[in-house]
Amino acid sequence: MSNFLDPVGKASFDAAKMTKADLARGEHLFLGLNCLEPGQSQPVHTHASADKFYLVVAGKARITTGGSTSEVGPGQVVWCPAGQPHGVEPVAEPTVLMIGMSPPPRP
Amino acid sequence: MSNFLDPVGKASFDAAKMTKADLARGEHLFLGLNCLEPGQSQPVHTHASADKFYLVVAGKARITTGGSTSEVGPGQVVWCPAGQPHGVEPVAEPTVLMIGMSPPPRP
Repeated sequence: MSNFLDPVGKASFDAAKMTKADLARGEHLFLGLNCLEPGQSQPVHTHASADKFYLVVAGKARITTGGSTSEVGPGQVVWCPAGQPHGVEPVAEPTVLMIGMSPPPRP
Repeated sequence: MSNFLDPVGKASFDAAKMTKADLARGEHLFLGLNCLEPGQSQPVHTHASADKFYLVVAGKARITTGGSTSEVGPGQVVWCPAGQPHGVEPVAEPTVLMIGMSPPPRP
């Protein structure tokens, strides 16, 4: 794997559901992509023991974290510390989110 | 601290040296900014026990990781797993890098 990553180039969509892809996986930190077609979403969920963030690579999303929901676009970051419920409402356009998680999820 | 972060809006520069700013700090994961004015750099260094990445928010940088150096621009990511030397050559334009590190560095 190259250490120089181009998230946009790794995006791929599936009409059936949100896709997930690995970008990088270390002992402590994981980087990946979530790609959503219009109408796709990620239900609110919680990682009890992992910190996570979303970074919008392309598109636009209404993301919930803790008790708040906000629309975010390219370059914006949503912080989801361990134990805090978070999720993505159905998107209106193709949307690519980079996510980081520590400790890494299981492969 | 809001959980909705705008890295661009948090950038601030110092003619004397590269600046560092916190974006978010959890038990497992830290997000921050490195802002470099033209001519500023970050010497090659190693975090023996922390995974790290750079994401270019604005500007352009030649970043080294492991044995390779590459010029990267907005949206590109450089992966620096624990133990791998990395650094930033003197930049030619104002450059904002988001960095993530796990475990977090000391405050």
